[in-house]
Amino acid sequence: MKIAMIGLGRMGGNMARRLMEGGHEIVAFDRDADAVAKIVADGAEGAASLDEARGKLGSPAIWWVMLPAGAITEQTIGTIADAAQPGDIVIDGGNSFYKDDIRRAKALAEKQLHYVDVGTSGGVWGRERGYCMMIGGDNETIAHLDPIFETLAPGTGDIVRTPGRIADKVDQRAEKGYIHAGPAGSGHFVKMIHNGIEYGLMQAYAEGFDILKTKSSEILPEDERFDLNLTDIAEVWRRGSVISSWLLDLTAIALAKDEKLDQFSGHVADSGEGQWTIDAAMEEKVPANVLTASLFARYRSRVEHTYGDKVLSAMRFGFGGHVEMPQ
Amino acid sequence: MKIAMIGLGRMGGNMARRLMEGGHEIVAFDRDADAVAKIVADGAEGAASLDEARGKLGSPAIWWVMLPAGAITEQTIGTIADAAQPGDIVIDGGNSFYKDDIRRAKALAEKQLHYVDVGTSGGVWGRERGYCMMIGGDNETIAHLDPIFETLAPGTGDIVRTPGRIADKVDQRAEKGYIHAGPAGSGHFVKMIHNGIEYGLMQAYAEGFDILKTKSSEILPEDERFDLNLTDIAEVWRRGSVISSWLLDLTAIALAKDEKLDQFSGHVADSGEGQWTIDAAMEEKVPANVLTASLFARYRSRVEHTYGDKVLSAMRFGFGGHVEMPQ
Amino acid sequence: MKIAMIGLGRMGGNMARRLMEGGHEIVAFDRDADAVAKIVADGAEGAASLDEARGKLGSPAIWWVMLPAGAITEQTIGTIADAAQPGDIVIDGGNSFYKDDIRRAKALAEKQLHYVDVGTSGGVWGRERGYCMMIGGDNETIAHLDPIFETLAPGTGDIVRTPGRIADKVDQRAEKGYIHAGPAGSGHFVKMIHNGIEYGLMQAYAEGFDILKTKSSEILPEDERFDLNLTDIAEVWRRGSVISSWLLDLTAIALAKDEKLDQFSGHVADSGEGQWTIDAAMEEKVPANVLTASLFARYRSRVEHTYGDKVLSAMRFGFGGHVEMPQ
Amino acid sequence: MKIAMIGLGRMGGNMARRLMEGGHEIVAFDRDADAVAKIVADGAEGAASLDEARGKLGSPAIWWVMLPAGAITEQTIGTIADAAQPGDIVIDGGNSFYKDDIRRAKALAEKQLHYVDVGTSGGVWGRERGYCMMIGGDNETIAHLDPIFETLAPGTGDIVRTPGRIADKVDQRAEKGYIHAGPAGSGHFVKMIHNGIEYGLMQAYAEGFDILKTKSSEILPEDERFDLNLTDIAEVWRRGSVISSWLLDLTAIALAKDEKLDQFSGHVADSGEGQWTIDAAMEEKVPANVLTASLFARYRSRVEHTYGDKVLSAMRFGFGGHVEMPQ
Repeated sequence: MKIAMIGLGRMGGNMARRLMEGGHEIVAFDRDADAVAKIVADGAEGAASLDEARGKLGSPAIWWVMLPAGAITEQTIGTIADAAQPGDIVIDGGNSFYKDDIRRAKALAEKQLHYVDVGTSGGVWGRERGYCMMIGGDNETIAHLDPIFETLAPGTGDIVRTPGRIADKVDQRAEKGYIHAGPAGSGHFVKMIHNGIEYGLMQAYAEGFDILKTKSSEILPEDERFDLNLTDIAEVWRRGSVISSWLLDLTAIALAKDEKLDQFSGHVADSGEGQWTIDAAMEEKVPANVLTASLFARYRSRVEHTYGDKVLSAMRFGFGGHVEMPQ
Repeated sequence: MKIAMIGLGRMGGNMARRLMEGGHEIVAFDRDADAVAKIVADGAEGAASLDEARGKLGSPAIWWVMLPAGAITEQTIGTIADAAQPGDIVIDGGNSFYKDDIRRAKALAEKQLHYVDVGTSGGVWGRERGYCMMIGGDNETIAHLDPIFETLAPGTGDIVRTPGRIADKVDQRAEKGYIHAGPAGSGHFVKMIHNGIEYGLMQAYAEGFDILKTKSSEILPEDERFDLNLTDIAEVWRRGSVISSWLLDLTAIALAKDEKLDQFSGHVADSGEGQWTIDAAMEEKVPANVLTASLFARYRSRVEHTYGDKVLSAMRFGFGGHVEMPQ
Repeated sequence: MKIAMIGLGRMGGNMARRLMEGGHEIVAFDRDADAVAKIVADGAEGAASLDEARGKLGSPAIWWVMLPAGAITEQTIGTIADAAQPGDIVIDGGNSFYKDDIRRAKALAEKQLHYVDVGTSGGVWGRERGYCMMIGGDNETIAHLDPIFETLAPGTGDIVRTPGRIADKVDQRAEKGYIHAGPAGSGHFVKMIHNGIEYGLMQAYAEGFDILKTKSSEILPEDERFDLNLTDIAEVWRRGSVISSWLLDLTAIALAKDEKLDQFSGHVADSGEGQWTIDAAMEEKVPANVLTASLFARYRSRVEHTYGDKVLSAMRFGFGGHVEMPQ
Repeated sequence: MKIAMIGLGRMGGNMARRLMEGGHEIVAFDRDADAVAKIVADGAEGAASLDEARGKLGSPAIWWVMLPAGAITEQTIGTIADAAQPGDIVIDGGNSFYKDDIRRAKALAEKQLHYVDVGTSGGVWGRERGYCMMIGGDNETIAHLDPIFETLAPGTGDIVRTPGRIADKVDQRAEKGYIHAGPAGSGHFVKMIHNGIEYGLMQAYAEGFDILKTKSSEILPEDERFDLNLTDIAEVWRRGSVISSWLLDLTAIALAKDEKLDQFSGHVADSGEGQWTIDAAMEEKVPANVLTASLFARYRSRVEHTYGDKVLSAMRFGFGGHVEMPQ
């Protein structure tokens, strides 16, 4: 199929290349002309504007927007809506908030445009391993796009089939690595929860390794310490343990390179999905202590001291005359 | 009554003086001869050793130990046990772990000594306001010590009587500001939970004021900020609001002095009780998310970055190629 | 002054009566004619419609809306905007979301109406003790309303003055029990954080009393139990301890009545402010583990089992063959 | 090698059989004679007592104790110590607390016995997949036992080698699925943290699936729901997503069988390791909000209502006159 890829950053560029390798054609657009030139050299058609891109696409045109969530995505989809023709399909493959998808799908439907939201996981490894995709939109449009999703997805590969999945009940897409989650917005909703879980998993490992690391530190009296090899611990847990996972594989790689992790500042960023997941939990009245604590640990990592800490010290001084000193 | 005060730090010294003001006699001992000299100048008898102290006491002697919890208290009680005579009463007024009390009470009972544990709240304000006390020990001993506790406690004062307390069911001690909680260990157990709650209350205020403070900071776009006066907010909450409390009074005092709280480093110490409270919760299988989060916030306040944060960054680098930069 | 009180529920009715006792005149409106009749009997003028109410007010009219936050408040303010005359003042004394205030203030300003948001704390005790108020709006309007706020507020009373408050720097309003927090929305913002803190304080006490209660239960082996008197513990903590507070006073009252608290189901409701506080924390990137855990504890109290718990059991069955049985 | 397997429950029985399949000889003992008879039928030698077992072992004898942690393990190791001869090796393969290991290793050393603690992960799948093992003990003893561990461990299999592991720096054992973590106690310490992490990972998935599940429930207004297929979501996440893991595989299996998970009561058990992990975190002053919240979620799952919830309701009644009703 022929797809316009709008946004040629790490994610968009890699996906475009995986699509071309899978036999699809790419019309490439990016504000950065160099990025366009590079992928043209790899076999894509370039476009200097969205209008030009439209001219190079058939009908219905497929627009895959792969840009940072927020203003830039919002604005670009607006411009595409102007350049598009009735029946065209607009895909937001970024990390948009699912309520924005619902709103956009309605707005585009008035122009007879189909809106599809695709939440994508796999990071920089997706180009080679394939992308896990969670997709929202109407049935017909998703069915039309199946060849694209099949190319982008990992495919069944050598991952063991889940026992108990019954053939005729199976949504085969799931086993290939993508799902049609429901109407517009549902793709990004599922991806949002995916990222919320991701934060929780990461923090669980982080706390565990922190306790292991500190066990060998001078925080403890010498006779209470163990001199643990965290690199080997991460490695052995990959092999037969209950907590083996891809995130653990990545941890093992990082520790094998430098167990002290000195290249990392300790400031940890968060994107919107973690926060939105907590919003969803609160809308649904679902307790989510772990996902929330994981998000807050990242906030805390980015400030030296909180005003709240000073309030604590001020109270302690108030009742006990304690003056808190740096330690 | 005549009481040996062992340990003349801020707490012990103040309590001894309050006792003397209440008509009791003090035999004072401290490793710091200056501290002894000072309180002798205020009317106490001094003692250069525990044996000498015993000589100045009647029978049963009352030994009030007011020292930091841990080795020094343990050791001192051991020495007192040697100096004491059968029937003597040994009071630990510090912050000992309640299981240590249980053990000690048994050991001292073998020497016919009575052990009493007193958890004390009120901080530096206790000298003037009186000390809130939670007491463990046997009935007879506590009854014998009532005059001492009455002097140390705040008394009924002008605090409004709790509606519904029925006179003949009332433990009058509670209304005077002290209780006999149960056998040895129960006093410190109740005090331990008191401090666990204290951590939780403090952290609740700390987080609230943090959100208020940040609401006026450049973290937010200018049109989303409010320029809030935290000093006035603390003040107004003291007056008729649901969250008025003594800790809020202390916060109001601190903010009135310096709303920025610049004198405080942001490192917040914790003593053993917070941790022991969580231990108790776990022994009892009681979920205690707030008390635990309060304790952990203090741990976190004392380190610049955790190893766990670096593990998070290492994973993020692993799947997304993100390199975390200081912000 | 003359004020229209719109909404005569427990809060609105009590406030209207406190205002009348303070020498103000009330024009009363409620959908429930009985509620109007009752307060008319107490000296208010009744109004059968907002238009009729307007006819009984001077200029600028003061409209105090005291209704549940949400649709009913929104709709009523819309109707008032139609009945009002330029220069009128519309006060929302309920628990509206502060962003709704900001929006409404703008909309009303276009009709030359002044909007004031008043967050109120004090509950059913406010009628007698006075209401703690946090107010948003423009300077001139708040100044005009000062006599009303003075009447509703507790006044300085016998609450000890905060040491360090300097007379000429003092916002005297705070010491009387109300503050002008800033522009429209800021009153409800501060009240929202107040409630967030309230949840945290309550949960801290709840967890502490839970640990105390369980310490005497059969969860523990008999020789590890203490038979604690929670009623006396709450009472003694009111007297000189660091954790004395109004919420503790209320707890002491409840325990004095029935230490088992059997009349309460264990289902705990939450209103919007707790959730909005977490939203604000996330917008500001402020870690708020305690406030969040307090909110989630309430969610959890209202369901028998979570689907998440079943997921845990399903995993445990998956790797360990454990079948979870009710205990 | 020849090994006495003491305890023929699911874990011990499976390990003994895996060892026999790997060419080792087993002397089997269990209080349940039937269990002994069964494994004798599979090729083991049986023993009716520990003394009889010793008679069938060479020197040094290898005793592998595979019993529930606590009194039964403690007592059995004591009995083995009596039956053993100097130089014998006693292995605790259960889930003992690591401080008990340290104590036992010292006690056994006085009898010239070698103590080894083996933390084992893999659950019921270990028989086939192999067991991931974390081992504490002295170098010489562990080296002597290498053939046993190699048999029990998964081996390198087809798990991708961690990039960056340098051959001559590699502890080859880790890549085979077991490590020598350090002296006695360190094996169970690492296993304990493993389980702490496991709780955190599980709770992260549980909360995420809970939010997904509730998104399609009547908790939300109909127009805010998505009708999500959790079975397919779990399946797709196994394929190329950042959160793929073995625990997710198990979740996918459970959901494929019954997405409602109706067979599970919602009561979730916890073993000692989760609690001990929090103890270790507190000893080290490491904040571990996620691991703790995971543990507490399990406590909470096992009670209908907490006394703490009733305390909250009692306070709410106190200030607001709210009476909490079941919903």
